[in-house]
Amino acid sequence: MSRYWSPVVNQLSPYVPGEQPKIDNLVKLNTNENPYGPSPKVIEAINRVTDEGLRLYPDPTASRLRQAVAANHNLQPEQVFIGNGSDEVLAHAFFAFFQQSNPLLFPDITYSFYPVYCGLYNIEYRAVPLAEDYSLRLDDYDTPNGGIIFPNPNAPTGRLLPLSEIETLLIRNTDSVVVVDEAYIDFGGESAARLVNDYPNLLVVQTLSKSRALAGLRIGLAMGQEALIEGLIRVKDSFNSYPIDRLALAAAIASYKDDDYFKKTCQRVIDDRAQVTGELEAMGFQVLPSSANFVFARHPDKDAGTIVAGLRESGVIVRHFKQARIDQFLRITVGTPAQNQSLIEALKSLL
Amino acid sequence: MSRYWSPVVNQLSPYVPGEQPKIDNLVKLNTNENPYGPSPKVIEAINRVTDEGLRLYPDPTASRLRQAVAANHNLQPEQVFIGNGSDEVLAHAFFAFFQQSNPLLFPDITYSFYPVYCGLYNIEYRAVPLAEDYSLRLDDYDTPNGGIIFPNPNAPTGRLLPLSEIETLLIRNTDSVVVVDEAYIDFGGESAARLVNDYPNLLVVQTLSKSRALAGLRIGLAMGQEALIEGLIRVKDSFNSYPIDRLALAAAIASYKDDDYFKKTCQRVIDDRAQVTGELEAMGFQVLPSSANFVFARHPDKDAGTIVAGLRESGVIVRHFKQARIDQFLRITVGTPAQNQSLIEALKSLL
Repeated sequence: MSRYWSPVVNQLSPYVPGEQPKIDNLVKLNTNENPYGPSPKVIEAINRVTDEGLRLYPDPTASRLRQAVAANHNLQPEQVFIGNGSDEVLAHAFFAFFQQSNPLLFPDITYSFYPVYCGLYNIEYRAVPLAEDYSLRLDDYDTPNGGIIFPNPNAPTGRLLPLSEIETLLIRNTDSVVVVDEAYIDFGGESAARLVNDYPNLLVVQTLSKSRALAGLRIGLAMGQEALIEGLIRVKDSFNSYPIDRLALAAAIASYKDDDYFKKTCQRVIDDRAQVTGELEAMGFQVLPSSANFVFARHPDKDAGTIVAGLRESGVIVRHFKQARIDQFLRITVGTPAQNQSLIEALKSLL
Repeated sequence: MSRYWSPVVNQLSPYVPGEQPKIDNLVKLNTNENPYGPSPKVIEAINRVTDEGLRLYPDPTASRLRQAVAANHNLQPEQVFIGNGSDEVLAHAFFAFFQQSNPLLFPDITYSFYPVYCGLYNIEYRAVPLAEDYSLRLDDYDTPNGGIIFPNPNAPTGRLLPLSEIETLLIRNTDSVVVVDEAYIDFGGESAARLVNDYPNLLVVQTLSKSRALAGLRIGLAMGQEALIEGLIRVKDSFNSYPIDRLALAAAIASYKDDDYFKKTCQRVIDDRAQVTGELEAMGFQVLPSSANFVFARHPDKDAGTIVAGLRESGVIVRHFKQARIDQFLRITVGTPAQNQSLIEALKSLL
């Protein structure tokens, strides 16, 4: 508290990201980073532009990156927005679309940054309970609203909503923006980007942090019809003209040019997720069906907090949310085969 | 306009940054970039961390960079905030401190992003006219307010307010935050950072874009007492947990470690500014006394718009603000000696 703060600052409940420990040799399976690193062509692209040109501002419009993303999704560059990580893209989307007279709707179990943005921009919201099996029920969103947002696959559950259901939602809900937050889509779902040209109120948000292994560089994006993208650009240009630096721009463009590497590493994660799931189930865990690069699992007999503490002593960190309905679950990132093996062995010694 | 936008988006008047032309061989003196590039040690530091570690998130607290900045200014790390360019730092400062019942005060001729932030966050403001000689009169700010902000040296005039006057302002104005925006301070002023421990309502904002030649990497910072920094952190953590990427963090830390290079390149710009000023005056220009890496100059006989157009035909671009009181001025970045010579020759052929 400070008498110099704007009053709203006192009411903020900032987001708490997963721990980024400064200890080496940890098996770090807590923040859904990619185990494989970015394409070697990304490294080359960064090296090429690491020179005295850093004295110059980057392209404030990120035009070449917008072209690369658009080409990847059969869209136009004017249908793509770039931000400093998908968290910034989401913040601008909340500002641009969700300050409405009706409340925003999102699942009760979801990305915990959503209510934080609502606090920042004084947006009223209603958390809509997921079904008992943690799936999203479309009918629950069939009510007047100032917007709808959910991750697909959902976080931290990993459950996917099929594209056909998203389309049904868009057909029913035409008066407010529907944001599909696809941070994990490349690990098992189909992007709603292909619905963009049909639905003027659809915004699809993605990140290069997970499937493209560039969490360290902060690049996110949104895809939607031009009017929505223009709204985001108006907000961005009222906040920070140059959010994406030169090295991140070069890296992101190179990533989209190396589709083979991208597909190969995503497939590895998908294959290893199946193996980890099988081993967890063999130990008695209930594992929700995951389309993400993590699994969400609970053990019927052993307290989640106890497991997390035990894993930590073995040098394995996973994420645990102390939230009603999911406080007995662990969210475990799919790592390299060696990391996954360390996890399984550590769990075996605890159970 | 779109029916899907939040109503506030219709009212935004986004900032328009200086042009970033995609043409080579231009003498680009329009956005106050450093002519000399960052320290070679910065390049080495980036190369060292350009590897598979990019798959991991950066340190969300930027702790090592905060330490480096604090050490540079004899402050504590808790007195330093880091943002994605000083534009983001300013945006968060407007949000954190200036949403008050009294209006914010800033000069009528100043960084044109300030009223844009006010539009974004619905902050009432009053533009306080500079004196006839474009200096800032302290007495004009001796009135109830919800905050005060000005660049020092001012932009685009280049005029410096001495530190003694800033201290007088802080002694008189104790009920609201005073932000001193020091984007250009290293080219001829003394930073107000040394007043931080004495004044709980002082926030000093700096950027690595100009004097440290890292415009391409987007790093800004604020220095103030811990309560102010905590307010900024609350806003940042409600907006984007990881605004600064791994490469930018490494680069910025390396920049603070190479003080010799920093001082040497700043001094070159200062020396060349004196030379450019002399040559402009010899051609009849009135040049405001500048403490920045640019000069602000007008010719008594020749229309500024005409000069700008003529320079452009010669491949030289400078900045021209079509704003009352300064629409006959050119803002000219101090470039390399060769660029400055091209400018002077192009001007000679026009006059």
